[in-house]
Amino acid sequence: MTIRPEPAVAMPSGAEFATDGAIHLNGNSLGPPRTTLVAELDRIVSDQWARRQVQGWFSDGWLDLPRTVGDKLATLLGATPGQVVVAGETTSATLFNVLVAACRLRADRPVLLVEAESFPTDLYIANSVARLLDRRLVVESRAGFDAYLHEHGDEVAVAVAAPVDFRTGERREIGPTVALCHRVGVVSVWDLSHAAGVLPVELDANRVDLAVGCGYKYLGGGPGAPAFTYVSARRQSQVDFPLAGWHGHARPFEMSPTFAPADGIDRARTGTPPVLSLVGLNHALDPLIEVGIDELHRRSAELGELFLDCLAERSPELAGRLASPRDPDRRGGHLALRVSQAERVENALAERGVHVDSRPPDLIRFAFAPLYVTHEQVRRAVEALCDAVEGVR
Amino acid sequence: MTIRPEPAVAMPSGAEFATDGAIHLNGNSLGPPRTTLVAELDRIVSDQWARRQVQGWFSDGWLDLPRTVGDKLATLLGATPGQVVVAGETTSATLFNVLVAACRLRADRPVLLVEAESFPTDLYIANSVARLLDRRLVVESRAGFDAYLHEHGDEVAVAVAAPVDFRTGERREIGPTVALCHRVGVVSVWDLSHAAGVLPVELDANRVDLAVGCGYKYLGGGPGAPAFTYVSARRQSQVDFPLAGWHGHARPFEMSPTFAPADGIDRARTGTPPVLSLVGLNHALDPLIEVGIDELHRRSAELGELFLDCLAERSPELAGRLASPRDPDRRGGHLALRVSQAERVENALAERGVHVDSRPPDLIRFAFAPLYVTHEQVRRAVEALCDAVEGVR
Repeated sequence: MTIRPEPAVAMPSGAEFATDGAIHLNGNSLGPPRTTLVAELDRIVSDQWARRQVQGWFSDGWLDLPRTVGDKLATLLGATPGQVVVAGETTSATLFNVLVAACRLRADRPVLLVEAESFPTDLYIANSVARLLDRRLVVESRAGFDAYLHEHGDEVAVAVAAPVDFRTGERREIGPTVALCHRVGVVSVWDLSHAAGVLPVELDANRVDLAVGCGYKYLGGGPGAPAFTYVSARRQSQVDFPLAGWHGHARPFEMSPTFAPADGIDRARTGTPPVLSLVGLNHALDPLIEVGIDELHRRSAELGELFLDCLAERSPELAGRLASPRDPDRRGGHLALRVSQAERVENALAERGVHVDSRPPDLIRFAFAPLYVTHEQVRRAVEALCDAVEGVR
Repeated sequence: MTIRPEPAVAMPSGAEFATDGAIHLNGNSLGPPRTTLVAELDRIVSDQWARRQVQGWFSDGWLDLPRTVGDKLATLLGATPGQVVVAGETTSATLFNVLVAACRLRADRPVLLVEAESFPTDLYIANSVARLLDRRLVVESRAGFDAYLHEHGDEVAVAVAAPVDFRTGERREIGPTVALCHRVGVVSVWDLSHAAGVLPVELDANRVDLAVGCGYKYLGGGPGAPAFTYVSARRQSQVDFPLAGWHGHARPFEMSPTFAPADGIDRARTGTPPVLSLVGLNHALDPLIEVGIDELHRRSAELGELFLDCLAERSPELAGRLASPRDPDRRGGHLALRVSQAERVENALAERGVHVDSRPPDLIRFAFAPLYVTHEQVRRAVEALCDAVEGVR
C-alpha cells in the first residue's frame, strides 16, 4: 500500500472534533464529539423543543428522525434509501428484534447459527431468542462457519455474523457467506457495529437480508448512541417484529387498539424515539457522508499501515505481537496487539494523551478513524506506545 | 379543595423552564426543557466526553447512569433504592421485556390480561408477547378488570394496567387491584407513563411486582426520553428477561460468552445506554425530587381545580363537556374535554400561546404539571380556550 502524503488540511472534511489535544485511537469504541455538537443540541433544545413544544414532532421532523438518520446511514452501508432505520433502542434490543423476525422467516428450521467470535451481547441475545422460539443455538467458530452452512444448511433458519472481529479487527467477506446462505435458504443477519463508518459493507450488492449496528464507534454518535436496523427491500413485507410499538404502526396517530405494521422500513420502528441521542448520531454522520465510505476506508487502512510500519521500525518485538492480519485488506478499522498487562498499558497511554482500549486479558486495540486521526498523531502514538510498554515492564 | 394563594415564586423549586413565554398545559405529553439543560449537555459533551473519552463510562459515572437515574426516580414512585433502572430502551421495548419476564413467572397459566383503555402501544406489545409465549390475550375494560380477576384469576398469569387513563386522566387505585392479584397468584404489571412525576403510586406500599413508564411526560426528560423499569426487590432474583444484553450481565467486562444475569435491578439493564438522553432525564428529575411527589400532586390537583372552576364561571357549556371525573381525587395530572374539531382548537390555542394536545376524534387534554404552570397561566388558558372554541365555530 502506498501511503500518500498527509493532506494539507488535517481532516478530509471541514468538520472539527473536540479532541482536547489528545490522540483518539479508539474510534472502534467511542470517537470524540464534533466541536459543533453542543450548538446543535442547543438548537434542538432552545429553538425547537422550548418554542414549538410537542409540535416539534411534526414541524421539526423529530418524528422522521429514525428515517432521516437511517437514510443517511444507508449511504455509508451501500444501501439505497428506505432500508435503514434508527428506532431508538440499544444494539442488544435491536438485535433481539431482528433475530426474532429473522427466525420467523424460517419457522420450519431448528437452528440459529452464530459466530463464536461475536461480541458477547450477540451471543446472549441469540441465546435468548433461541430459548424463546424453541430453536437450537449453534455457536460455530468463524473458521468453521461456512463449512457448517455447507454441511447442515438445511437445518439452519438464521445465520448471524460480523464482518469485523471486535477483538482482532480481522475482516471477513460478507458476500460469499450471504451467497451461501441464499443457496441453502438461510436468512443472513449481520452485526455491523465494528464496521459501519469505516469499512464498505455493500449491503445491497451483497444481498444481505437483515443487519444491525450500533451508532457509536466509527459512526461517532456518542456514548450509547442508538442502534440501526437494515431490512432489505425484498424482505420488508415479510418481516414480523416482536417489538411492535406504536411507531411501527401503519397509522400510529389513529391510536387503534389493533396493530397493523407499517409498510417498508417503518415496520422496524418501535416506541417513541429518544430525540437527543438521535440528534447526536445525526450530527455525527454529516462529515462521514461528505467524505464517503470508500475514501474513509482507504484513509483508515493507510493510517493502520503507517502505524505498523512505524512500529516495525521502532520496536520489531512489539510489532511481532500483532494479533490481527498483517494484510490491510483483511482488517477492519482497528488492529490489536497482544501485550501483557494490557490495561496498565492502556492507562499509561492515556496519561500520555493517547486514547486506546484494552480487552482482557492481553489485547490492546488501536483504531484508525479516518476523520480525526492524522499521520503525525499515528507517529506520536507509536512513540508513546513503546514508552508506555517500557514503563510498565 | 381549598386553593391556596399563589406562592411568591412561580415555581416551588428554583428551577426555571424555557417556556418561550407560552403556557404549557401538555406536561402529559412533553413538558418544556429546563433553562439549564443545554449547559448540562455541554458539561457532559465538552468536559467529560471530549476530555476523558471512553473513560467517561467509569470516571464520569456514565455506566451507572441507569441506576443513578433509577434511584432518583424511585423516590418519586414510592420505592426504596435498588428497584428502578433506566436501561435505555423505549417504553415499548421496556414493556416487552417486562411482560415476557412477568409471563415466565407464571408459565403454568394461559392468560395475559390487559386493560382495554391502555395506551395503544401497550395493547400491541401485550399482543406480541402473548403470541410469542403462546398465551391468550384478554382485553378487558377497566370497569370489568377486577371482576375478571375475581372470576378467572386462576387462569391469569399477568395483569397489566395503568393508574391513569391516557385519554381522560381518570385515576384508578393501584392497591386494591394488586392485592387482588396477590390473592389469586397473578403477577401485576403497571404502566406508569401518565402518572410518574405527578401522582403518588406507592409501588412498595402497594406491593406492585413490576412496572414501567416513560421518561418524558411529567418527568420532563425530553422528547422520547428512555423508559424506566421497576422490579420489586422480592421479584428480582426470579425475573428472567428476554433482552439479555451485556449490561445486564453479572460481570459485563469479563466479556464471557455465556450470559449470567446480574443480581438485583441491574438484571433489567440491556445494552449500552444512550448517555445524552439519560442525561436529559437525569437533569429533569432534580426539581421534581426537591419538591416531592406529594406536593407535586397537591399542586397539580389545585391547578386542575382552578381550571375547572374558572371554566365553569366563564363557560358552563364548555365545563359541561368534561370527559374526566369531576372529583380531583379521581383524576391524575390531566383532564379532557370533548370538543368538536379538537385538532383545530388545539392549533388555535397554540396560536394564542397555549400548548395542549388533542386526541382524535374529539378530545382535548389539559395537563397541570406542577413545576411550570402557574395560577395566572391557568386563568389565561381558560380565556384562550373559550376564545379558541368560539373562533373555530
